[in-house]
Amino acid sequence: MRLQLSTWPEVEAYLTRSTGIIVPIGSTEQHGPNGLIGTDALCPEIVANGVAERIDVLVAPTINVGMAQHHLAFPGSITLRPSTLIAVIRDMVQSLARTGFRHIYFFNGHGGNVATVQAAFAEIYAENSLAGAPGSPLHLKLANWYQGRRVGEVSRELFAGDEGSHATPSEISLTWHAYPQAAKRVAMQPARAPTGNFRDAEDYRRVFPDGRIGSNPMLASVEAGRRLFEASVEDTIEDYTAFLAR
Amino acid sequence: MRLQLSTWPEVEAYLTRSTGIIVPIGSTEQHGPNGLIGTDALCPEIVANGVAERIDVLVAPTINVGMAQHHLAFPGSITLRPSTLIAVIRDMVQSLARTGFRHIYFFNGHGGNVATVQAAFAEIYAENSLAGAPGSPLHLKLANWYQGRRVGEVSRELFAGDEGSHATPSEISLTWHAYPQAAKRVAMQPARAPTGNFRDAEDYRRVFPDGRIGSNPMLASVEAGRRLFEASVEDTIEDYTAFLAR
Amino acid sequence: MRLQLSTWPEVEAYLTRSTGIIVPIGSTEQHGPNGLIGTDALCPEIVANGVAERIDVLVAPTINVGMAQHHLAFPGSITLRPSTLIAVIRDMVQSLARTGFRHIYFFNGHGGNVATVQAAFAEIYAENSLAGAPGSPLHLKLANWYQGRRVGEVSRELFAGDEGSHATPSEISLTWHAYPQAAKRVAMQPARAPTGNFRDAEDYRRVFPDGRIGSNPMLASVEAGRRLFEASVEDTIEDYTAFLAR
Amino acid sequence: MRLQLSTWPEVEAYLTRSTGIIVPIGSTEQHGPNGLIGTDALCPEIVANGVAERIDVLVAPTINVGMAQHHLAFPGSITLRPSTLIAVIRDMVQSLARTGFRHIYFFNGHGGNVATVQAAFAEIYAENSLAGAPGSPLHLKLANWYQGRRVGEVSRELFAGDEGSHATPSEISLTWHAYPQAAKRVAMQPARAPTGNFRDAEDYRRVFPDGRIGSNPMLASVEAGRRLFEASVEDTIEDYTAFLAR
Amino acid sequence: MRLQLSTWPEVEAYLTRSTGIIVPIGSTEQHGPNGLIGTDALCPEIVANGVAERIDVLVAPTINVGMAQHHLAFPGSITLRPSTLIAVIRDMVQSLARTGFRHIYFFNGHGGNVATVQAAFAEIYAENSLAGAPGSPLHLKLANWYQGRRVGEVSRELFAGDEGSHATPSEISLTWHAYPQAAKRVAMQPARAPTGNFRDAEDYRRVFPDGRIGSNPMLASVEAGRRLFEASVEDTIEDYTAFLAR
Amino acid sequence: MRLQLSTWPEVEAYLTRSTGIIVPIGSTEQHGPNGLIGTDALCPEIVANGVAERIDVLVAPTINVGMAQHHLAFPGSITLRPSTLIAVIRDMVQSLARTGFRHIYFFNGHGGNVATVQAAFAEIYAENSLAGAPGSPLHLKLANWYQGRRVGEVSRELFAGDEGSHATPSEISLTWHAYPQAAKRVAMQPARAPTGNFRDAEDYRRVFPDGRIGSNPMLASVEAGRRLFEASVEDTIEDYTAFLAR
Repeated sequence: MRLQLSTWPEVEAYLTRSTGIIVPIGSTEQHGPNGLIGTDALCPEIVANGVAERIDVLVAPTINVGMAQHHLAFPGSITLRPSTLIAVIRDMVQSLARTGFRHIYFFNGHGGNVATVQAAFAEIYAENSLAGAPGSPLHLKLANWYQGRRVGEVSRELFAGDEGSHATPSEISLTWHAYPQAAKRVAMQPARAPTGNFRDAEDYRRVFPDGRIGSNPMLASVEAGRRLFEASVEDTIEDYTAFLAR
Repeated sequence: MRLQLSTWPEVEAYLTRSTGIIVPIGSTEQHGPNGLIGTDALCPEIVANGVAERIDVLVAPTINVGMAQHHLAFPGSITLRPSTLIAVIRDMVQSLARTGFRHIYFFNGHGGNVATVQAAFAEIYAENSLAGAPGSPLHLKLANWYQGRRVGEVSRELFAGDEGSHATPSEISLTWHAYPQAAKRVAMQPARAPTGNFRDAEDYRRVFPDGRIGSNPMLASVEAGRRLFEASVEDTIEDYTAFLAR
Repeated sequence: MRLQLSTWPEVEAYLTRSTGIIVPIGSTEQHGPNGLIGTDALCPEIVANGVAERIDVLVAPTINVGMAQHHLAFPGSITLRPSTLIAVIRDMVQSLARTGFRHIYFFNGHGGNVATVQAAFAEIYAENSLAGAPGSPLHLKLANWYQGRRVGEVSRELFAGDEGSHATPSEISLTWHAYPQAAKRVAMQPARAPTGNFRDAEDYRRVFPDGRIGSNPMLASVEAGRRLFEASVEDTIEDYTAFLAR
Repeated sequence: MRLQLSTWPEVEAYLTRSTGIIVPIGSTEQHGPNGLIGTDALCPEIVANGVAERIDVLVAPTINVGMAQHHLAFPGSITLRPSTLIAVIRDMVQSLARTGFRHIYFFNGHGGNVATVQAAFAEIYAENSLAGAPGSPLHLKLANWYQGRRVGEVSRELFAGDEGSHATPSEISLTWHAYPQAAKRVAMQPARAPTGNFRDAEDYRRVFPDGRIGSNPMLASVEAGRRLFEASVEDTIEDYTAFLAR
Repeated sequence: MRLQLSTWPEVEAYLTRSTGIIVPIGSTEQHGPNGLIGTDALCPEIVANGVAERIDVLVAPTINVGMAQHHLAFPGSITLRPSTLIAVIRDMVQSLARTGFRHIYFFNGHGGNVATVQAAFAEIYAENSLAGAPGSPLHLKLANWYQGRRVGEVSRELFAGDEGSHATPSEISLTWHAYPQAAKRVAMQPARAPTGNFRDAEDYRRVFPDGRIGSNPMLASVEAGRRLFEASVEDTIEDYTAFLAR
Repeated sequence: MRLQLSTWPEVEAYLTRSTGIIVPIGSTEQHGPNGLIGTDALCPEIVANGVAERIDVLVAPTINVGMAQHHLAFPGSITLRPSTLIAVIRDMVQSLARTGFRHIYFFNGHGGNVATVQAAFAEIYAENSLAGAPGSPLHLKLANWYQGRRVGEVSRELFAGDEGSHATPSEISLTWHAYPQAAKRVAMQPARAPTGNFRDAEDYRRVFPDGRIGSNPMLASVEAGRRLFEASVEDTIEDYTAFLAR
C-alpha cells in the first residue's frame, strides 16, 4: 500500500490495523560510469514496494535527496546539509506521529545518510527527554537494505571481493532489475576501483576519479538484481515485522 | 532524461548542451475522499516526465513532501515547516549550481508551496546581494502546472464551477491518467464542497470535513486526465523553453 | 489608538473591547529618483494611523525593515533575510497572543514581503498543527494597502498605465501627503520606466538603472496622496472590520 | 537627515561626505501606569532626529521591538527572542555595509537590549575573525541615551533617588516632550516603586505589580523632557563625532 | 563535590539537600606572552573546586570554550559563535532543570562571555514568558570571579594600575597557584600594555600586538595566586549562598 | 603539551613542528551505580594527556558535554541536542583551522557522540563541497578510545562477557586509575545488567533501571585501569601518528 496512491480514508482504515510505516530514504549522487544517479533512492523504494505487495504495510514517498556532500564534484549529485536533513526527518516524524503512526521504519540505501539519520532520531527524542514528559510513544528505526542477511549472502556469492563500497554491482543490479531499460554497458579501468578515505568533494574525485570505491560494477546484471530484490524483500519483511512487535 | 536514471557522464554530456533542469515539487497531503495523497507530487512529476519525452531536458527527482501544515488533521498528510523547506531548496540549488546548472525550474503541484518557495529564492539571492559580489549566475523559476493556459482551458471546459481549489477534478484526473489502477469511485455529500478560509489543521478540518475545497472530484476521469496531461506538457514546453532563453 | 503612545492599563482596557490589532509592515529600500526610501513602511503606517482616528483599533509600531534583497545595489536599502523576517513575525505574534490578542492584521506596503509573511503564518500555524493540540485561537491576515478596491480606482483614474509596479506615483503621492516637505521634483528618462524580471541586487540594478519598474513617478503629487489616503482608510476600515468578525 | 525621508541619490551623495549612520533601537513594552509602551523606542528616535537637525548625519528607521521577554505579563508588550534580534542586527549591518556604510552607531533606549546587541556585534565580527580574512572595515557601537553625561546630570538634579531603573521619570518626560498630548496623570502607590531582581514575565509582574522598578514617574513633566532632550542631543553629538573619528 | 567524579545515586542524594549547582565557564584564548591559553576556564574551575571543599555544593564540568572571536589572530585561540554558546547554555540548563536543579550559578572567568550568557538566560526565560505558562522555577545567575569584593581588594593592593583588563597579573597568578609548573617568566615591552578598543581578530592583534590589554603580567606570582584563590573562595561562598536563598 | 597550560607563543612554535591536535570529547551522563558521571569525558582526557607525555602533540581542552539525551532520567546527566553539538564542533574546527591546524583528531569516549560528530564533519566539509572551492585543507578524524586494538585485548582478557556496552568495567577502571579516590564499591543486582534497545530517557530508565547496559562494573579496579591506560596510550600513538601522515 503506497501512501502516495492512497486516499486519507484508506489511511485512516489502515491505522486501525497498524501504526507502522516504511519511509524509503536515499540519495541523488553519482554511482560511477554505469550506475544510476538515483541508485540509493531507487533501491529502498523498489524493495519497499515489493514488501508492500507481500504484507499489509504502508510505504511513504521516498526521500530522494540525502547527505552526499562528498559526491558534488560529479555532475548531477545533489546534497542536503546534515542540519537540513535532520530538520526534514524531524518534520516528517512529527507529522506522522500527529496522525497516529507509532513505528516509523526508515529504509535506507545510502551509507552517507546513516550518521545524520541517527542524529535526527536523537534530536527528536531529545525534545521528549528534556521535557521530562512521559516517554515518547514513537519507535524509530533506520535499516539499510544492503545490510540484510540474505542480501549479503547473494552479494558475496555473486561478487565477492568485487562488491566494494560505492557503486557496487549489487546496488546497480537491483536498479536494473526494476529499470532494465536503464542498464548500461561501460568499460572501466581498472576493473576493480581503488579503496581509501575521503573528505570533501574535491578530495573524493581526486582519489576516486570515476566515482567508484572498491567495486567492479561491470559485473552488474538484471538477473543478479532479481535475486537481490527477492532476498531484500525477505530480509525486510522479517526485520520490519520484528520492529512492529516492539 | 530523468536524473535518477542517468549516469554522471551522461549528465556531464547534457551540461554541454543545456544548463537547465526541471525539479518537480509537490506535497503529501489528503486530497478528499477519492483523491490520492500523492496528487500534488505526482502531477508535476507525470508532466515533467512527459516533457522529457518530447524535448531534451533533465528532470530531477521529485520533492515529495512540501508545506502542508493545514492538512495534518487528515491521516497520511506530512508537512515540512516553511523554514525546513527553505533549507531544502537552498541546499538543492547550491548543489545544482556547483556542477554547472544555471536555469533551475521548480515545477509545482501545490498552492501551499508557493509562498515558501518564493521565500527560498529570496533567501538564496540574498546571500549574493548582501555579499555585493558580482551578480548571481542563477535563474530560478517557480511554475505551477495547474496555472498553464491550456490546462485552464481544458479544466474550464470540463469542470467549470466544479473545479474548486483543493482536491480538484483536474488534478485527480491527471493522477488517474498515470495510475488508472488507483482511480476510485466514492460518493460525496454535497457534490460540490464548501469554500472559505482556513488557518491551522484543526480549523481546516472543521471547515472542510472531507478535505475538499469548492470542488466536485466525482467528475474526475482517466480521459480528462489524458487531455490535461497533453495540455500541460504543451504549456510546460513553451514556458520552460522561454525560461531557458533568459 | 497607537500602541507606542498607550500605557499598559489602556491596552488592558482595550482588550476588553477588542482582540484585534493592526501591525504595519514595510521595507527600507530605494524608490527611484524621487521616491522616499521609507515609502513602503510609511504608506501602511500613515493609513493605519488614519484608520485609528476613525475607529477603535490599536496600531502596533511599524516593522520598518522587510525583505528587500533585490534593492541592495542602491544605497540606503536594507533587507532582512526571509528566515529572519519569519522569526520576527513569529516572535511578535507569540507576544501579542500571550497578552490576549486574537486577530492580528499585518498591513503591508511592500510586494516583496508577501511570500515571506505568508510563509511566516504557515510556520506559526505549523507548530499548532504538528502538536495536534486544539485549534489555534489566532487569526492572522496579510493585507496590502495598494490592493484595496478604492485605492485601485483612484490609482487607475490618476495614473493609468504610468502606475507601474515599483516606485509608483501612487505610493510616492501617499508619502508626500503625510510628509509634504519631503516631496521632490526630479527629472527622469524615460518618463515611464522599463518592466521585466529580476533576480538579485546586481541583476535588478542592471535592468532598472534608476530603480523604478514600469512607473512614471513624476506624476506624483500631494493632492493625489490625499485622495489615496482617504481611499485607503475606507478600504482598510471595511476589510479590517470584516476580518474582526471572523 | 532621515533615511526614510531620503531618496537613494541623496544617500549616495551623503556617502561621499560620511560613512556613518545612527540606528535607533528600542523596545515595545510596558512602562508603568503612566509611561508609554513605546518609551524605549521613542526616546532614541526623538534624540537621533534632534541630532540630525544639528549635524550632517543619517538616521535609520527605528528598530521598534527589542528584547522584552520579562514584560510579557503586561498587555501590549512585544519581544523578540535574543536569537531573533541577533539575526535582525546581523542582516541590517550586512545591508548597510553592502552599500558603503562603515560606522554604524546603534543608539539604544532599553537596558534589556544591551547584552543581545553586544552578542550580535560579536556574531558579526566572528564571521570575519573565523575566515581569517583581512580585518573587517566595520565599526559598530552601542550607545545608551540614558547614560550620557549631561543626561545623568539633569536626571540626578531633577529626580535623584526617584529615578529608578524602569519607567523612570526621565524617559517618560522625554517622550512627553515630543508627544505632549500623550502625557497622562495617574496616581501610584507607593510613590516610589520597589527594586529587586526578576527572571521571566510571571516573576517580574509578581515582584513589580504595576511594572515600575524603583521609580516615581509621577514626577515626569514635559519641561523635564525638554531639558533631557537638549542634554541628550549634546551628549550624542559629542559621542557620535568621536566614534566617527576612529 | 564534583559532578564528574560523582555517581548518579550520589547526585540523587545531593538533590534532596540542595537544588543548586555551580557551572564554571571560561574561554580558550591567548593570554599574552606568559599567560596560559586556558586561563579563563581554569580560574573559575580552580575556585569552584575550592568552594566545593568548603561547602556542600555540586560543581559541573567546565565549559572550556567561550566567546573569543577577537583573539583568533593568536594561535591556540578557539571561539564559539554567540549563537552557538546560547544553544549550549540552553541545552545544559534544560538538562539540569530536567533532573531537579533549580539554582544554576554560572561562574565565569571571561569578560567576553558576559553578554552572550545574559542573552542565553533571556532566550531561556523567553520560552516561558511567551508560553504564558506559570512562572519558571529556574534561578539563573552569572557571576564573574574577578569581580568579587575580596578579589578586588587583593588585586588593587598587589597590582594597582598594572592589573589591566586582559592577561592580568591576577588571573595569571591564580592559574599558577594551581599549576605552578606552568608558571613562565617572559620579558615584555612595554611593561604595561596599551589600552583601547577592538573589533575583530585582525584589529585586536594590530592594536595589542602581544595580546595583553593594559596589564603587566610580569608581576604575576604563585603567592599572589594563593591569596587571590582564598579571596575568591570567600567571595563565592558568600555570593552563592545568598543566591541559593532566593 | 596541553593547550590550556600553554601560551600562544608556545603554540605558534608548535605549529612550525606539527599541524595536528587531539580534541578529547566525552559526555556528562550516568554510568551506573559505581561509575562516574564524567567517565566518558575523563577517559579520553586521561589517555590524551598520557599520549602528550610520550609524543610531541598538543591536547585541546575536553568537550565535556556531548549527546546524552537517553540518560536524562538519571540525575546529573546533561545533554546537548545533536544540532547544538554540530555547531560546537563546526566553530571549534573553524577556529583551529584559522590559526593553522590541519589535522584535528577528535578522541571520543562516548558511543552516543559518534553519529553526531560524523554529521558535524559532513556539515563542515559540505560548505567546501558546495562552494566548489579548491579542496579543504582539513583532515578530521573521530577515534574512539574503547575501540583500540590493544584496549580490546585487555578488556576481553579481563572482563569478557561482563564488559557490556554502558558503564563497562573497562571505562570505569580507567577513570579509577586516574582518580583512585573516586573508586566506589557498590553492590548491584543482577551482577550483569540486561541488554536491549532504548529510545528516549524514560524508555531507557524503564529498560535499564540502574543505568548499566550488559555490564558488570563490580569487576572494575584501579589495576585494570592502569593496564587499559597503557594499552590505550599505545593504540592512540599509533593511530594518531598514522593520521598525521595522511
